[in-house]
Amino acid sequence: MSVKNRLRKIIFEADTPAGKTFDIILLLAILLSIVVVMLETVKPIDEKYHQIFFYIEWILTGLFSIEYVARALLVKKPSGYIFSFFGVIDLLAILPAFISLVIPGSQLLLVTRSLRLLRVFRVLKLTRYISESQLLAQSLIASRRKITVFLFAVLMLTVILGTIMYIIEGGQNGFTSIPRSIYWAIVTLTTVGYGDISPVTVMGQFIASFIMILGYGIIAIPTGLISVEMSQNMRSSTNHISCVNCSAEGHRADADFCYECGHKLQE
Amino acid sequence: MSVKNRLRKIIFEADTPAGKTFDIILLLAILLSIVVVMLETVKPIDEKYHQIFFYIEWILTGLFSIEYVARALLVKKPSGYIFSFFGVIDLLAILPAFISLVIPGSQLLLVTRSLRLLRVFRVLKLTRYISESQLLAQSLIASRRKITVFLFAVLMLTVILGTIMYIIEGGQNGFTSIPRSIYWAIVTLTTVGYGDISPVTVMGQFIASFIMILGYGIIAIPTGLISVEMSQNMRSSTNHISCVNCSAEGHRADADFCYECGHKLQE
Amino acid sequence: MSVKNRLRKIIFEADTPAGKTFDIILLLAILLSIVVVMLETVKPIDEKYHQIFFYIEWILTGLFSIEYVARALLVKKPSGYIFSFFGVIDLLAILPAFISLVIPGSQLLLVTRSLRLLRVFRVLKLTRYISESQLLAQSLIASRRKITVFLFAVLMLTVILGTIMYIIEGGQNGFTSIPRSIYWAIVTLTTVGYGDISPVTVMGQFIASFIMILGYGIIAIPTGLISVEMSQNMRSSTNHISCVNCSAEGHRADADFCYECGHKLQE
Amino acid sequence: MSVKNRLRKIIFEADTPAGKTFDIILLLAILLSIVVVMLETVKPIDEKYHQIFFYIEWILTGLFSIEYVARALLVKKPSGYIFSFFGVIDLLAILPAFISLVIPGSQLLLVTRSLRLLRVFRVLKLTRYISESQLLAQSLIASRRKITVFLFAVLMLTVILGTIMYIIEGGQNGFTSIPRSIYWAIVTLTTVGYGDISPVTVMGQFIASFIMILGYGIIAIPTGLISVEMSQNMRSSTNHISCVNCSAEGHRADADFCYECGHKLQE
Repeated sequence: MSVKNRLRKIIFEADTPAGKTFDIILLLAILLSIVVVMLETVKPIDEKYHQIFFYIEWILTGLFSIEYVARALLVKKPSGYIFSFFGVIDLLAILPAFISLVIPGSQLLLVTRSLRLLRVFRVLKLTRYISESQLLAQSLIASRRKITVFLFAVLMLTVILGTIMYIIEGGQNGFTSIPRSIYWAIVTLTTVGYGDISPVTVMGQFIASFIMILGYGIIAIPTGLISVEMSQNMRSSTNHISCVNCSAEGHRADADFCYECGHKLQE
Repeated sequence: MSVKNRLRKIIFEADTPAGKTFDIILLLAILLSIVVVMLETVKPIDEKYHQIFFYIEWILTGLFSIEYVARALLVKKPSGYIFSFFGVIDLLAILPAFISLVIPGSQLLLVTRSLRLLRVFRVLKLTRYISESQLLAQSLIASRRKITVFLFAVLMLTVILGTIMYIIEGGQNGFTSIPRSIYWAIVTLTTVGYGDISPVTVMGQFIASFIMILGYGIIAIPTGLISVEMSQNMRSSTNHISCVNCSAEGHRADADFCYECGHKLQE
Repeated sequence: MSVKNRLRKIIFEADTPAGKTFDIILLLAILLSIVVVMLETVKPIDEKYHQIFFYIEWILTGLFSIEYVARALLVKKPSGYIFSFFGVIDLLAILPAFISLVIPGSQLLLVTRSLRLLRVFRVLKLTRYISESQLLAQSLIASRRKITVFLFAVLMLTVILGTIMYIIEGGQNGFTSIPRSIYWAIVTLTTVGYGDISPVTVMGQFIASFIMILGYGIIAIPTGLISVEMSQNMRSSTNHISCVNCSAEGHRADADFCYECGHKLQE
Repeated sequence: MSVKNRLRKIIFEADTPAGKTFDIILLLAILLSIVVVMLETVKPIDEKYHQIFFYIEWILTGLFSIEYVARALLVKKPSGYIFSFFGVIDLLAILPAFISLVIPGSQLLLVTRSLRLLRVFRVLKLTRYISESQLLAQSLIASRRKITVFLFAVLMLTVILGTIMYIIEGGQNGFTSIPRSIYWAIVTLTTVGYGDISPVTVMGQFIASFIMILGYGIIAIPTGLISVEMSQNMRSSTNHISCVNCSAEGHRADADFCYECGHKLQE
């Protein structure tokens, strides 16, 4: 086996011991890199260890760059990797470091590296997690139109309720403009409730109460949508065969015989 | 084709290129109008651009008025349009501007124009979204009685718990009156939690804890209601065949025979 | 028909015009009474109208007392009314007024009158709402053991997490005692989040984040419980007959014929 | 019956009157012990009753120690008890007291005693509650992979959104470092919303609004997951028959024949 082949195996496959070790080291390097970017923004820590952080960051960026180039060269179709989901993420993980040479401060965008942590699912038994996340994604896609209608209704509600609150509270008590009142309406409807802006007039508190109960109630809508969609996706991912003998339905996905009459099932 | 017919096609239909272009320009004009109304309330921006905002607002109001009159004249049955859902919304979108000539400040109600954005669903493939929103609406209507019972129970709970808190906290710590305590109870039960009023006494915090856990738990009730209703609506919405023999409706999606008279169903 | 019979019809039945009118006047009187109790606690309003409020309260209490005595005398079995659900509520609605003659301030408990508003369901088409609320109640009762286990787990979690936070935040930043820390843990876990107490140390914020994500996630448990229970209750309230001809199941509750083979169903 | 046997019956069984009495006294002692630990941290109360609390704590710790030793000696296989779930909890409940002799302050960990309250389910009709909690646990275990994917996605979201907020708010308004911004993103996404940190810039409030609506919407995902899982567990938990021919399990509740080999099922 050529060196190229061996390297390809280590970098791209997670089943061999060498490949698994490579993936775990990569994950740890990504984690370390993210932690360093974060700690650099904590002033007392940064003042002490600025130099160390600087070196770690550039060493890791160097290694990730080498890895990126290696992946692009080793793969059979480089363009296939470069424009793939993980290819783009890998590029986003090194670009900010080089951009920061021109625009200071942009190295903070290195936290996009956290997306690379998605590789963790490759180290775990990958396929299972992929099918699980596909189920989640499918449910979301299947109900995308209902969710659009729902979000649209919520946004229009917050615009109108926000304006009403601006009129009622009279531009005081934090409701200084319509955009700010809409921001408050979103904070209230989603039951977040910072309390940085809160109604003071009786009428304002009355409408606020209405928005809260509304928000408390309509959260049931997306929940119901997703529940139903998931329950249908799960069912449909099983078995649609009906028994030729008794026409019973709803067999297990792996059923060979009818639960009703014991007849052999035919696909 | 007469000019009237051609205009009618452009204004009322979204399938032809001209009609689609008209609808998109209309949506952009509505959006611009809403943004202007909002920005007028942000003082530093308003001070700079007050004149421009004033002109934009009146030009758009003029255009919308022309559009409203055109729709009413072009349609075959004017009263059919004027009293339709969109007809009323279109009127609400221009009225506040004219009212503001008499009552200053009422032009803020122009945000009701945001309701006109519902037209966006006409530009997208309309029918799909309508059936989706009908499903949402049906689920809400079907469970309206259960939701009434639930909301009634919640309101009585907040009235009683609010009063108890007023008695316990002794009119201090923000619980200055029963209506205010009820407002606080709603803020707490819906898990919004502004923190503008919060219990200070031990007994008050104990009851607050009880209200929170209650609110955290009973949100399950509307969610459960809507989930079940949606799941039933989805299932029951698949078959729309009515029996040729007895005209019964609401058969199972997989039904071959009428549940009412046993007659064979025909699609 | 004797006077007693006629009065009985008016007071106890909601179907006759006189009975319906009586019920609606009663509801309005209850509402007025609750509003008066509430407004009495709003100082600026109370100072102005104290006398009026005082008279309204005592007139209404007088009327409710007469109504209570009338109900007890007119009914065939007085003890049956007195110890019934509504009988106890009716008594609770007049007692606080008389107690307030001895213990000042206890007239605030008159808000228990709001429970009498439950009569509103009698004026509406009663039976439907009762069956709806029974469905709600059944679902809650059927899942009471699971909910007990869940609440127990939540309470133990908040006790332990509250203590850990007390140790970490070192009795400062509002975490001045374990009970107070537990109160904070409940505020956080239920996603209420007043912000009257909030962690300041890094470790405290880390654990707080954990509690929030936990609370955000485990709300799914009661919701799932109730959803499943309701969905089973709804299904089971329909039809359990299987067709004698083809043994198909899942017929509509009002089905007379099998949807699968058209055979007559037999109970 | 020997003394050892009699003691064993009292300590380990909850069905005999003596055993039940023992269990209830034990629960009360545990509760008292937890209340004492809590009250010790409330300064005004502790100053008054410090001595009493001190004695109660050590007497109870002594009794629990004796109980622990007794359980270990009386049981047929001591190691079986010591390493069982309740054995470990019983040890955790007395250890902190002894550790506090060396490390002051560690007696606060005595709240781990609250875990012993799980014994309450033994006094109630145990088995029912155990099967209920197993159902809860099963649902959580069955959806553990989907929940892992979900939590992972949420964590990455908060890391990236937190960093964006740190850049936008410019290290002011409480967003002093990336870890703190991530903490804020978690507070917002989970709809807790303390308000100790809240965005001030327009752009910050815009992104905050996005996070809130996101958090408000995606809570539907774990809820949907658990609902579906529970509904499947409940259905599948009705039939526990294994096929006598091929020992396949997991048949539908209404199955008459094995889905694997078509053999008739026998109950």
